[in-house]
Amino acid sequence: MQSDRRIEHVGLGSRSYDIYIGSGLLHQAGSILGGIGLHKKTAIVTDTTVGPYYLDTLKASLQACGFTTHVAVLPDGEQYKTLATIEGLYEQLLDFSLDRACSLIALGGGVIGDMAGFAAATFLRGIRLVQIPTTLLAQVDSSVGGKTGVNLPRGKNMVGAFYQPSAVIIDPFVLLTLPDRELRAGLAEVIKYGVIRDPGLFAFLENGISDIVGHDAEAVASVIMQCCRIKADIIVQDETETGVRAHLNYGHTIGHAVETLTGYTSFLHGEAVAIGMLTAARVSRRLGFCSENDVGRVESLLRAAGLPLILPPFPADDYVNAMMKDKKKTGSSVNFVLPRRIGEVFLHPISADHIREFLSAFLPSA
Amino acid sequence: MQSDRRIEHVGLGSRSYDIYIGSGLLHQAGSILGGIGLHKKTAIVTDTTVGPYYLDTLKASLQACGFTTHVAVLPDGEQYKTLATIEGLYEQLLDFSLDRACSLIALGGGVIGDMAGFAAATFLRGIRLVQIPTTLLAQVDSSVGGKTGVNLPRGKNMVGAFYQPSAVIIDPFVLLTLPDRELRAGLAEVIKYGVIRDPGLFAFLENGISDIVGHDAEAVASVIMQCCRIKADIIVQDETETGVRAHLNYGHTIGHAVETLTGYTSFLHGEAVAIGMLTAARVSRRLGFCSENDVGRVESLLRAAGLPLILPPFPADDYVNAMMKDKKKTGSSVNFVLPRRIGEVFLHPISADHIREFLSAFLPSA
Repeated sequence: MQSDRRIEHVGLGSRSYDIYIGSGLLHQAGSILGGIGLHKKTAIVTDTTVGPYYLDTLKASLQACGFTTHVAVLPDGEQYKTLATIEGLYEQLLDFSLDRACSLIALGGGVIGDMAGFAAATFLRGIRLVQIPTTLLAQVDSSVGGKTGVNLPRGKNMVGAFYQPSAVIIDPFVLLTLPDRELRAGLAEVIKYGVIRDPGLFAFLENGISDIVGHDAEAVASVIMQCCRIKADIIVQDETETGVRAHLNYGHTIGHAVETLTGYTSFLHGEAVAIGMLTAARVSRRLGFCSENDVGRVESLLRAAGLPLILPPFPADDYVNAMMKDKKKTGSSVNFVLPRRIGEVFLHPISADHIREFLSAFLPSA
Repeated sequence: MQSDRRIEHVGLGSRSYDIYIGSGLLHQAGSILGGIGLHKKTAIVTDTTVGPYYLDTLKASLQACGFTTHVAVLPDGEQYKTLATIEGLYEQLLDFSLDRACSLIALGGGVIGDMAGFAAATFLRGIRLVQIPTTLLAQVDSSVGGKTGVNLPRGKNMVGAFYQPSAVIIDPFVLLTLPDRELRAGLAEVIKYGVIRDPGLFAFLENGISDIVGHDAEAVASVIMQCCRIKADIIVQDETETGVRAHLNYGHTIGHAVETLTGYTSFLHGEAVAIGMLTAARVSRRLGFCSENDVGRVESLLRAAGLPLILPPFPADDYVNAMMKDKKKTGSSVNFVLPRRIGEVFLHPISADHIREFLSAFLPSA
């Protein structure tokens, strides 16, 4: 299982790190992490779904390189992404007698990465963190860039920290066990990178989306690499989202509202983002910022990826109320990320009244 | 109430900030914070003890400068420094509709500063923080440097973050309402600065401790300024305690064990640190690192400040066990901060067996 390893550097001064991408890399985690001087005592945080597939491989790889591995297995699901779960995890880390020199390895999707990341950011005021994402969404998005957090009853990711990992190890092979629906949901974030930054990537996806859905190893690895490069580039420019990093939220303002209104049960995150991206493109078209052709390309690609496109039929007021509670809101308007064309987006504040008007026009019940 | 304002800069690149020190400065909080461009919507976090004294003054000062002030009042006491309290605080911040542009102002002692700091570090992945410390201990130590956190059932400050404030406002006038015992406990940290870095400060205290205990405004302000300058200097060298910042833990390794063994009820933090400083000086003397004269000077000054000196009579094994759980422990020995002379300390790992031996010799029951 020799891998074709590629490395993307995230240059953040003393918080710099590398993203290692390659099929079969999970088997090389021990040598990679030994190579960056990680302390030999580690705790792996995973969940009840991913653990049975990949925990043994990761442990074997680490142990072969002299690592001691403790394991914390959390229940799988967004509903467990809470402070209560984190508090239980802290207790386990104390049971393992982890000290400040030790590290945490997140093995799982976005929820595990966010929670293990937040625990690493805050346990003993911060211990080292390694991300080994096992979903496409986590591989192209949440594992890179240092966003960590948990949900509060009133909102998603309301608590968290910006905390960069010491390394990210991405093995596209693990996507072979990912349910098809989750792979497609991850593609929403991939398509996002095309819209916000890279017309070439967007065109590549238009031509090759079936290869990716069909798990063509070369196509998948290439797409992950392109996404990580874009994300790394943005993070380096704006680590804590005071500026350009906000572009990564394209589709997320409406997407989060969709998730909130549907109680996080009807749509996967990427599916909600897909609906949000198309809606934001339509808003941009209405405001005269982008062409009908661009909206059509976004819609066609999302459709080809098998992603949902239609806003669930809640009153426009409910959408507005949900958005006004979003943590990205400042003041009485909402900052939307709108496409100007495929490959370029910009921030545009829209008042609650205007949002209501636009959504009423787009909603199926209207 | 015109103040003689002095400013100490903490140079940490994009995380730089100023410490404002002056009698009566609480009345100028609004203009100071307006001057640094703080968003006009703020939440003040205080407790049931400090609030009745100073909340109205602070609110009036802020409102006079156009600030909107929400207030969260937490129960007073180390026993409330928990994740449960923080979770309740998050809910209040949501009630206030704080967004990422808003800020938190901590008005209180070390516990309030640590908790408000941790909430600011993690709410919405971080909002701006202002520290207005109201105890001597918080003014010279915990409000500067960005350490924030809460306790877990198994240990103090086990969870937290390094998160720098945007400003620290220190008004020595507020110490007039501070109980004498708390003022003396704060002096332990002041004396600490003398031992670790500044023989001149130490000598100043040997001559003038009664002026400080007697609330001589000039002496108190001068001492706070000197301590903040030393702390700022150390933080700039080592923000996240990978090196020289550990010197600030002089007296704290044993001090924390004293607090743990006595259930945080018998001693104030500074009192436990006083016992820890004298014990560490004795350990250093035993190991031949410092002179008997230096140990005598530390003992005399702590005594003159009215601080406790004697280790509470627990078995030496209990002390060792408590220290082995300290978050500063790495591996099987404990890193002690030992004085070489007044004004100079160094880190020295001591094995559990040696600690047991030393403590047995010092313990009153031995």
